[in-house]
Amino acid sequence: MDQFERLAQLPLRDDLRGQHPYGAPQLDVPILLNVNENTFGVPQDARDAILAAVAAELDHLNRYPDREFTTLRQELAAYLGHGLAEGNIWAANGSNEVLQQLLQAFGGPGRSVMGFPPTYSMYPLLASGTGTSYLAGVRAGDYGLSAESAAAQVREQAPSIVILCSPNNPTGTALGLDVVEAVYEAGEASRTIVIVDEAYAEFSHTGTSSALGLLEGRPRLVVSRTMSKAFAMAGARLGYLAAAPEVTDALRLVRLPYHLSAITQAAAVAALRNSESLLANVEAIKVQRDRIVEGLVELGLTPAPSDSNFVFFGGLEDPNAVWEALLARGVLIRDVGIPGHLRVTAGTEAETTAFLDGMRAILAG
Amino acid sequence: MDQFERLAQLPLRDDLRGQHPYGAPQLDVPILLNVNENTFGVPQDARDAILAAVAAELDHLNRYPDREFTTLRQELAAYLGHGLAEGNIWAANGSNEVLQQLLQAFGGPGRSVMGFPPTYSMYPLLASGTGTSYLAGVRAGDYGLSAESAAAQVREQAPSIVILCSPNNPTGTALGLDVVEAVYEAGEASRTIVIVDEAYAEFSHTGTSSALGLLEGRPRLVVSRTMSKAFAMAGARLGYLAAAPEVTDALRLVRLPYHLSAITQAAAVAALRNSESLLANVEAIKVQRDRIVEGLVELGLTPAPSDSNFVFFGGLEDPNAVWEALLARGVLIRDVGIPGHLRVTAGTEAETTAFLDGMRAILAG
Repeated sequence: MDQFERLAQLPLRDDLRGQHPYGAPQLDVPILLNVNENTFGVPQDARDAILAAVAAELDHLNRYPDREFTTLRQELAAYLGHGLAEGNIWAANGSNEVLQQLLQAFGGPGRSVMGFPPTYSMYPLLASGTGTSYLAGVRAGDYGLSAESAAAQVREQAPSIVILCSPNNPTGTALGLDVVEAVYEAGEASRTIVIVDEAYAEFSHTGTSSALGLLEGRPRLVVSRTMSKAFAMAGARLGYLAAAPEVTDALRLVRLPYHLSAITQAAAVAALRNSESLLANVEAIKVQRDRIVEGLVELGLTPAPSDSNFVFFGGLEDPNAVWEALLARGVLIRDVGIPGHLRVTAGTEAETTAFLDGMRAILAG
Repeated sequence: MDQFERLAQLPLRDDLRGQHPYGAPQLDVPILLNVNENTFGVPQDARDAILAAVAAELDHLNRYPDREFTTLRQELAAYLGHGLAEGNIWAANGSNEVLQQLLQAFGGPGRSVMGFPPTYSMYPLLASGTGTSYLAGVRAGDYGLSAESAAAQVREQAPSIVILCSPNNPTGTALGLDVVEAVYEAGEASRTIVIVDEAYAEFSHTGTSSALGLLEGRPRLVVSRTMSKAFAMAGARLGYLAAAPEVTDALRLVRLPYHLSAITQAAAVAALRNSESLLANVEAIKVQRDRIVEGLVELGLTPAPSDSNFVFFGGLEDPNAVWEALLARGVLIRDVGIPGHLRVTAGTEAETTAFLDGMRAILAG
């Protein structure tokens, strides 16, 4: 009996049978542009501050952490601005856990969550993990989503929760705030919780507005964020959200006690107090992101408009062959399973050059 | 409208309405003996090792952590012994998350989990959070649980999952392995997953055996552990389990990707490589634990036999008054809501003296 046959002998939940674990391959390749990390790394002054903060925690690591992570919520509120205070803030080990807690509080058996594919592939998995039905909304042919279309779909399906990913992963494009406003209004009758997943918000083009500005007076609206991308801290696992204080009260009923370690809290607080340094590379990444779009257009491909730190592009006859040929050149990007398309993270100038040179050579050959 | 009325306006899951968040009060008191922490703290050599390990992670904190936390699983296997290898090991942010993942994989709607109250108060909350029914088993009058009784209850109720807490929280007493064997056998027909929660196993009396020795040939058996107690790292949030490899395969289907941060992994690995130093105070804590039992007997009270780092004791006319009077003396212990009883953590010699002196004065006065 092999391991899969042995797994089949266990009383696994029926809907998990035959499933495979989520996750991009973790390969050892010189240039990693596959999971939308910030390839610049953490600057030295921020490292020093984080390490000093962790060292201070070791004095009382035998004690449980602050269950309310009050200092961290204060720092996150100060970072976000928009008049938010600690009572508006919640955090967990990555925005996946933030979203899971929202689904545990407002979803579950007999309830539904709606997403608009192609979008972040964790949404249906989070639905499954919490026993919530997943409803797949529909986008336009160019992957756009208008206020009218989104609102009509929410009115018709009356989901318990809607997740709008903006900028959207994997397409990279931000939604206008008119879409968020229309969806919120359309969910009035069904009292739908509207989550705007802004994991990549810091990379948006100047002038693109965050849904944070819509929170006032909208108790069913939630904006989720992460320190994995712009803050270059994917390894630290810190996701968070802003919402009305009663939303955070609801999450206190489903969170595991002491879910955020003392070290995680201290590292994130130190990072937020050095946010200027940590965010200094965001502009450089946006420059490379725009350079990728221009370079791919020159190659006759069709990149989607991007407000994020990655570019989704179509026009490929054989995306898998291109993915393989790039890998052979030491450049790992992402095949997100959409015919004719691939996704690439905007890295440093040198990494971007390696990717564009590779693409040029592969398409010429 | 106050915050609770505003919460009532949100579409909260029906079974969460009116609930209060879990958690002991976090008070600022000189002597904290309320949540079974290791009051000795992390020794300096272990702190140095942990800090160096965290510093090394900051070089690539912009990258996602090893999703498989392979090095950590290897170190945990080496620590546990019993011929276990990395394929037998799983870990998460505290044993609460380990248990939640087990309930997500093997519990859920239409399934049940059985515990034997009084036991760890998170079990019913984890059941609720995963939509699993909670079945409360029955103990003897002295809070004991015999193999015959436990097996008969499992045969009758046929739960999807049983959790045996050994040493049991809040009573402190370990179960004989005959109970685990009998429950496992009784769950054969219902293919019941049997979890032995050994959070406090390192504090057991010499000669008490761990259920780790029963894993071979029992694919439905799971033994969970934590680094919060004996390892003095409650602030680091690292729980783990040992089981057949197919159990860990099942958990890969429900875990959130990258659920363990790079810093958590590095800190735990460094601690395990310094386990001799970290565990050096376990014997001292056991001495204080036994001293508490003897001291309480001298005061005419009835402490339960303890294999853990805490003592559960009865014979109090007014436990709340005693709890308050101890708090007034700067000693915080735990009222676990069982009539006539309180629970106290075994601390350092000085802390134990302060507790026993306090008890003596309060009962005399």
